[in-house]
Amino acid sequence: MSAGPPKTPGGTRLDPWFGAYAGRTHGLRVSETRALFAVANRPEVVSLAGGMPFLDALPMDLIAKVTADLIAAEGAVALQYGNGQGHPTLRGRITEVMAEEAIAAHPDDVVVTTGSQQALDLVTRIFVDPGDVVLAEAPSYVGALSVFKSYQAWVEHVAMDHSGLVPAALEEAIARLKREGRRIKFLYTCPTFHNPAGVTLPLERRAEVLDICQRQGILVVEDNPYGMLGFEGQITPAIRSLDEDGVVYLGSFSKTLAPGYRTGWATAPHAVREKLVLASEASILCPSHASQLSIAAYLDNCDWRGQIEAYRGVYKERCQTMLASLAEHMPDCSWTVPEGGFYTWVTVPEGINTKAMLPRATTALVAYVSGTAFYADGQGASQMRLSFCYPTPERIREGVRRLSGVLAKELELVSLFGPHGPGAAADVTNPAPDVA
Amino acid sequence: MSAGPPKTPGGTRLDPWFGAYAGRTHGLRVSETRALFAVANRPEVVSLAGGMPFLDALPMDLIAKVTADLIAAEGAVALQYGNGQGHPTLRGRITEVMAEEAIAAHPDDVVVTTGSQQALDLVTRIFVDPGDVVLAEAPSYVGALSVFKSYQAWVEHVAMDHSGLVPAALEEAIARLKREGRRIKFLYTCPTFHNPAGVTLPLERRAEVLDICQRQGILVVEDNPYGMLGFEGQITPAIRSLDEDGVVYLGSFSKTLAPGYRTGWATAPHAVREKLVLASEASILCPSHASQLSIAAYLDNCDWRGQIEAYRGVYKERCQTMLASLAEHMPDCSWTVPEGGFYTWVTVPEGINTKAMLPRATTALVAYVSGTAFYADGQGASQMRLSFCYPTPERIREGVRRLSGVLAKELELVSLFGPHGPGAAADVTNPAPDVA
Repeated sequence: MSAGPPKTPGGTRLDPWFGAYAGRTHGLRVSETRALFAVANRPEVVSLAGGMPFLDALPMDLIAKVTADLIAAEGAVALQYGNGQGHPTLRGRITEVMAEEAIAAHPDDVVVTTGSQQALDLVTRIFVDPGDVVLAEAPSYVGALSVFKSYQAWVEHVAMDHSGLVPAALEEAIARLKREGRRIKFLYTCPTFHNPAGVTLPLERRAEVLDICQRQGILVVEDNPYGMLGFEGQITPAIRSLDEDGVVYLGSFSKTLAPGYRTGWATAPHAVREKLVLASEASILCPSHASQLSIAAYLDNCDWRGQIEAYRGVYKERCQTMLASLAEHMPDCSWTVPEGGFYTWVTVPEGINTKAMLPRATTALVAYVSGTAFYADGQGASQMRLSFCYPTPERIREGVRRLSGVLAKELELVSLFGPHGPGAAADVTNPAPDVA
Repeated sequence: MSAGPPKTPGGTRLDPWFGAYAGRTHGLRVSETRALFAVANRPEVVSLAGGMPFLDALPMDLIAKVTADLIAAEGAVALQYGNGQGHPTLRGRITEVMAEEAIAAHPDDVVVTTGSQQALDLVTRIFVDPGDVVLAEAPSYVGALSVFKSYQAWVEHVAMDHSGLVPAALEEAIARLKREGRRIKFLYTCPTFHNPAGVTLPLERRAEVLDICQRQGILVVEDNPYGMLGFEGQITPAIRSLDEDGVVYLGSFSKTLAPGYRTGWATAPHAVREKLVLASEASILCPSHASQLSIAAYLDNCDWRGQIEAYRGVYKERCQTMLASLAEHMPDCSWTVPEGGFYTWVTVPEGINTKAMLPRATTALVAYVSGTAFYADGQGASQMRLSFCYPTPERIREGVRRLSGVLAKELELVSLFGPHGPGAAADVTNPAPDVA
């Protein structure tokens, strides 16, 4: 435990258990996004904040039917305990899903998890001691940063450009950290339709990144929830398709089907896979049979490839609407141009702090996620993530219009009173120096 | 990391990531029960090993219907992300379920988890640093020991008798550990229809145990999956009903409804509850909406109290069958007499080692769990857990008959060659001295 009372919510001296918590617990704080979502879910607010898929595009009656058939015919199995690695039938189906992204894997390589978030938790749990370094893109997925923080990892952000992670920056970061004697445990990367940056690492860079990590003995953790959601149906082969021994691949049904099942998976080299299963058994005994077999029944009885095609069409239209609205209403900003996925990453004019501006945006009935949520080190105050997955095109247009109004007022304030210090309001989630 | 190559499966020098694992990972081993269940699930084996509820007693057609209605009418919610604490509707229903055991709680006190196993994982995660002490009954639930081990806790077993945990032994253990300067984080207890011992802590002892822990500033973690499964419908008020500030209560739908939903919960004091939610969000984002809302729909539309009554009748008959079979076939053994739940705890004649005997039992087509699985310190070789929840009465009789044959042969061997050393084959799962 570090000295002095940590400033955690609820962690005041009024908590009788204050002195009993583990060291890792003092780093737990309410995330920027959770507080935000409470507001963003109000119906009058246009939320450009969440990563919720547009489930109205699903054939609910058909899903209801295959689920009912499953329970009526096989309820005594579907509602029973399963094994820690996941049901063999679903693991087989998962290899077929991954084959769409050029991954050749065996069902034995797959560990089914409670969403890919649990897979990320398990990977971190088995690899990270407090103070160990995790390399991650700058910016990186907020949920991954929460996991890393909860295991007291030090997150070292590596620069991206419009083609994703920059190999030279990766090489430089590794060399520097090794010189400093730091233990680097893995590179966490979301190479396709990046969350939050919306960019994609081209195939040749994937090979380069993999080669750097292999030469340096660093594991690659590839997080790929959006890979099948390219607007034109285009596929960039997964990093895992280039190598099976040095990559832990994380997949999910949350974006291609539905997140309510909380079903994702890790595909891992043999020894790592075995440890993931053991850690998962300690953590949850086994993933939900009800969810796993419902998904397997859906994959067997519904046109899942056609459904993903339908999702692509929805998200493509919404992305186009958002980019057009940005061009129309926010010409002072710049943004990335996604070719798939859920997000664009917007850079605001100098002097504006997106975290400080957020309360005023929600007052104006529009929500986004401040860029600071996607960094462990306080960066990101000049950026924001806008998501186009959930609101209708009409609502997206309205949301961007409202946001442009907020930005205009903010710029006026900046011109009168000067800028917020960059990052003034940002949280630093990397552990304190005594841990690192 | 400890010195030298740990003897973990897959943890050989052939694993290229061997040097990269976290300290906690070197303690992960295949549990005794997992290896066993692979064998025990073969249809020709009578398994007295598992804790699987008898789901054929469920009204599957009705469950299929309410689930289908839910997805057809509210799929866009039921299959969407939820919040980290769990759906408010289900949390409200959970307070009604707990009221059956005299617990007064507010839905805000409840955190829904991926089975109560995840609740146990989260409690341990927020409280336990490596080497911290967890007090647990002797014997204690094998899945809890896995969690404690995965966080490198030291488990100190406290004696039980036929009325559960012995208060004087608890007091003595706490005093001794405090004299030794050890940090005790909580008491983990399963007071009702204990797993594996099958005994129940009477109300007056609950008050005594709680009083000891309160005086010593030690949190009580009360695990209560079986509390409603008293054969006569009798209820012993939960420890949580006596105090809300010093108890984290763990509940589950796995035994009263079905484990395939992986839905359990923790009811915790305010500050602890907040930390559990934060830890759960980092770990899985949120529990499954599909499972939560399916259960809420079941509770709303089915006679769940009647269903639990039906389960009680099934388990009562099976327990009676098992006890009668033990009396008939294994008079050299002694066993506990459960008044509810799934298990009886059998002590075998001196000289027999239940862990060493297990391969011969499975060869004779009967399976149990060796007592050693329920201790972190190598005890338990003279005991075994027999479960009566899943096999039919006929199969239970056959299983005990087979087991008595194995025991007779084992006794013959012992009389010829002398006993196995007690605990000779047992695993010690407490951490190595350098951690503790």
